[in-house]
Amino acid sequence: ELPFVLFGGMNVLESESLAMEVAASYQDVTEKLGIPWVFKASFDKANRSSLNSYRGPGLDKGLEILARIKEGFGVPIITDVHEPAQCAPVAEVADVIQLPAFLSRQTDLVEAMAKTGAVINIKKAQFLAAHEMAHILNKCREAGNDQLMLCERGSMFGYNNLVVDTLAFGEMKAMDVPVIFDVTHALQRPGARSDSADGRRQQVLELGRAGMSQGIAGLFLESHPDPDNAKCDGPCALPLDQLEGFLSQMLAFDQLAKSLPTLDIK
Amino acid sequence: ELPFVLFGGMNVLESESLAMEVAASYQDVTEKLGIPWVFKASFDKANRSSLNSYRGPGLDKGLEILARIKEGFGVPIITDVHEPAQCAPVAEVADVIQLPAFLSRQTDLVEAMAKTGAVINIKKAQFLAAHEMAHILNKCREAGNDQLMLCERGSMFGYNNLVVDTLAFGEMKAMDVPVIFDVTHALQRPGARSDSADGRRQQVLELGRAGMSQGIAGLFLESHPDPDNAKCDGPCALPLDQLEGFLSQMLAFDQLAKSLPTLDIK
Amino acid sequence: ELPFVLFGGMNVLESESLAMEVAASYQDVTEKLGIPWVFKASFDKANRSSLNSYRGPGLDKGLEILARIKEGFGVPIITDVHEPAQCAPVAEVADVIQLPAFLSRQTDLVEAMAKTGAVINIKKAQFLAAHEMAHILNKCREAGNDQLMLCERGSMFGYNNLVVDTLAFGEMKAMDVPVIFDVTHALQRPGARSDSADGRRQQVLELGRAGMSQGIAGLFLESHPDPDNAKCDGPCALPLDQLEGFLSQMLAFDQLAKSLPTLDIK
Amino acid sequence: ELPFVLFGGMNVLESESLAMEVAASYQDVTEKLGIPWVFKASFDKANRSSLNSYRGPGLDKGLEILARIKEGFGVPIITDVHEPAQCAPVAEVADVIQLPAFLSRQTDLVEAMAKTGAVINIKKAQFLAAHEMAHILNKCREAGNDQLMLCERGSMFGYNNLVVDTLAFGEMKAMDVPVIFDVTHALQRPGARSDSADGRRQQVLELGRAGMSQGIAGLFLESHPDPDNAKCDGPCALPLDQLEGFLSQMLAFDQLAKSLPTLDIK
Repeated sequence: ELPFVLFGGMNVLESESLAMEVAASYQDVTEKLGIPWVFKASFDKANRSSLNSYRGPGLDKGLEILARIKEGFGVPIITDVHEPAQCAPVAEVADVIQLPAFLSRQTDLVEAMAKTGAVINIKKAQFLAAHEMAHILNKCREAGNDQLMLCERGSMFGYNNLVVDTLAFGEMKAMDVPVIFDVTHALQRPGARSDSADGRRQQVLELGRAGMSQGIAGLFLESHPDPDNAKCDGPCALPLDQLEGFLSQMLAFDQLAKSLPTLDIK
Repeated sequence: ELPFVLFGGMNVLESESLAMEVAASYQDVTEKLGIPWVFKASFDKANRSSLNSYRGPGLDKGLEILARIKEGFGVPIITDVHEPAQCAPVAEVADVIQLPAFLSRQTDLVEAMAKTGAVINIKKAQFLAAHEMAHILNKCREAGNDQLMLCERGSMFGYNNLVVDTLAFGEMKAMDVPVIFDVTHALQRPGARSDSADGRRQQVLELGRAGMSQGIAGLFLESHPDPDNAKCDGPCALPLDQLEGFLSQMLAFDQLAKSLPTLDIK
Repeated sequence: ELPFVLFGGMNVLESESLAMEVAASYQDVTEKLGIPWVFKASFDKANRSSLNSYRGPGLDKGLEILARIKEGFGVPIITDVHEPAQCAPVAEVADVIQLPAFLSRQTDLVEAMAKTGAVINIKKAQFLAAHEMAHILNKCREAGNDQLMLCERGSMFGYNNLVVDTLAFGEMKAMDVPVIFDVTHALQRPGARSDSADGRRQQVLELGRAGMSQGIAGLFLESHPDPDNAKCDGPCALPLDQLEGFLSQMLAFDQLAKSLPTLDIK
Repeated sequence: ELPFVLFGGMNVLESESLAMEVAASYQDVTEKLGIPWVFKASFDKANRSSLNSYRGPGLDKGLEILARIKEGFGVPIITDVHEPAQCAPVAEVADVIQLPAFLSRQTDLVEAMAKTGAVINIKKAQFLAAHEMAHILNKCREAGNDQLMLCERGSMFGYNNLVVDTLAFGEMKAMDVPVIFDVTHALQRPGARSDSADGRRQQVLELGRAGMSQGIAGLFLESHPDPDNAKCDGPCALPLDQLEGFLSQMLAFDQLAKSLPTLDIK
């Protein structure tokens, strides 16, 4: 089994200089640790709690920044799309396009994504069981795209809380697609602040270890040099200066998990 | 308090003749019972499990059918929209436009809906707590529309199951907007069939009684003359020949609920 | 169908004079409204959060108080038991003995209760589905007692919250035993205070209406003249001076529910 | 940090010879791997679904078997108690006595256990949040016993399903007591068979890896030479011939977890 791929970056693009700073940190750490890396950032946060929440630089300006990061760092790009018309232009820059969790059942978006030929990262919605992801894989395949990944990011557990069901990793791996773990958003407490989601970034190491112990294809991670002042999802963001410490542990768990056999239990 | 309004019709438009048959039944029964009625049908099911699932006649053909029902029966229309560009044309026919539960946090769609000036029915997503609906109301108001309704349709309870939290009605009523109950979709078991949602239409009377006991502004209901052969959500649909029996009970519970005072408990 | 029976009283016996005051209020109101009444109070709270929480007067003193209420008011008694040795002495005073929710699967206790010949009220545990109650009914029957009732009191919904699944009433009614609704404990938020459960007594009317709309055999209710100073579960207790207002509504919903037919939906 | 302790054995004592066979396998494997081992078996299953389910040899006969295992293998013993009167006799044989999850809030039982002076293993109930375990620790301490362990075994997730919240381990570790993981019962699907719990023993490796990645004090495990014919909880039991393969992986994850630092994330 291959080592894990890091889909690592930041939540929303704030400024180009900040994106460059974040990307530079990821490049340093991943080179040092030998972890394959894809840069992640969003150009638009399309479902913020408030109309006045910061949404990002938008499609055109966002793709420009992503293109410069791609070229400057020689790194593949992953970003998310929210409506069919965005898919083609985004896929000119992004190597992997991501289907957001809330939108994971929107047929037109799935179809438009599939037609780009890009790799598609499908976030498992907080309201879906692992076995239901088979339907979304089928939709993509019917639309002619078989370069698919599934991404765990937690399930609703009562109100305003998420829980990661460890058994979901195995159920999705059995669908024969790469399975990755969005440890950042799995730390969310949706709707738990008066105007936005809360999060538990202090516990990222715990959740990350559990995920990597499953022998998965990739890790999805968002960092920020100053999480308390991040423009979106700061409560879930890893402080950028913890990147090396965190990833070195993820690597160790990944290596151990993949060095050991599965057990054949009837 | 006013009597409840029925947002009653069918899931997806199948044929014009079937839509007319369904509308005629609703008209007969609501006239007989004196229930204000708005006809509901979808022109497109945008998030079916499979690419090959029936989606409906589409925007143009669907709006034609809805316009003919509106004129033929003299009934207001409610239907759902899925992307910003649909809002303006839909609002030319529909008096109430509906924000789907999965999309209830998509800012661009909310804004486009708000700008039509139509009444907006906001479905509470299966992954949101009642108190989070205040954010969506605010988004609409910030976008200039204050003709808003909230609609309960159940909350995720583990995998593949929904539960209706009766206390959510009161929490949403406290937001000073009309609150309605989608008793049909609250009967869903999401993902519980191999290729689609299952449902519990046999229990519609139980859930309907509980909802109407709360003194709410409206009831959302889908019926079908032959639920086992409906093209979408048949397991949740009320058999059309049960419409009068069902609605007469809903009316009795609504009248009782609204004839009694609230208690002021500290 | 018969009118509902009220299993009404208080949480834990505090003083005999308070118990008498509470019982007198129930007697006044139930006579006035014509509601059959069984007095409820606990002699021991066996699972409080802290060792120092008030537990009650204990078995001997508690049964004395209950016996005096039984005789003084001519009212049947319901109380709960927590270990096998309590069953026989309790059944000498109590007409109905109650199996606590947390203990609902303890075989020895179930058997000892069954052997008393008293009517048994089985609380559905917060961790059981309605269909699992069939096993507990069978245990009681195998132990020779078929005078059984089932009692809904909410299901765990994430951490520190309960939700009442309205559909559970019908599933338990289909087991051909009387089904009652503990509206008081269904209002709990378990573990939500630093040292005890919180509750939502302000919402008792909403939950009570939904329950009575189902046409059930009985209502379980705890009241207190001063809920903020009650020794246990005050956050869930109905203020005693609201008893008449509350029960008159419950009666109206019960009468309506039982005056209407079920629908035969395939 | 110390290596993990294995609380390993079988669900219920079936026959003495089977118990000896199981204990011998554990002894072989734990000696070979250098894992400290405490033998676990129950003398009575006090909350089976049916009155006719096998309960075990009972207190007297059960303690005899456990005493012979203790002496024969030179191994400490853990077993569970269900009522106050069992605590003293059980503690004469058992080094660790276990508070069952369903009974974890029963004050009299907690107090009787505390007074024995034995180490107490407190199972976190399926209906409690991690933070609520502090109350139960306090109860034990108030009763004079501070040799306490907490045991994770999953949380109710909808009906008939459990989920392990990885973050609960850290929350309980912060209470400064040893935290162990009952990977066997966390695999249960409560009430999912017509007459008993179902289980997912095929997935024990996945759940075990996630638990051991948290750096915990111990692992609780039940095995059986023939799970399909085990008298209780066979669907969750590890096949005895997989013991070495399974434990060697648990050891590797434990060693890795404890060799790495925590991160100090603000």
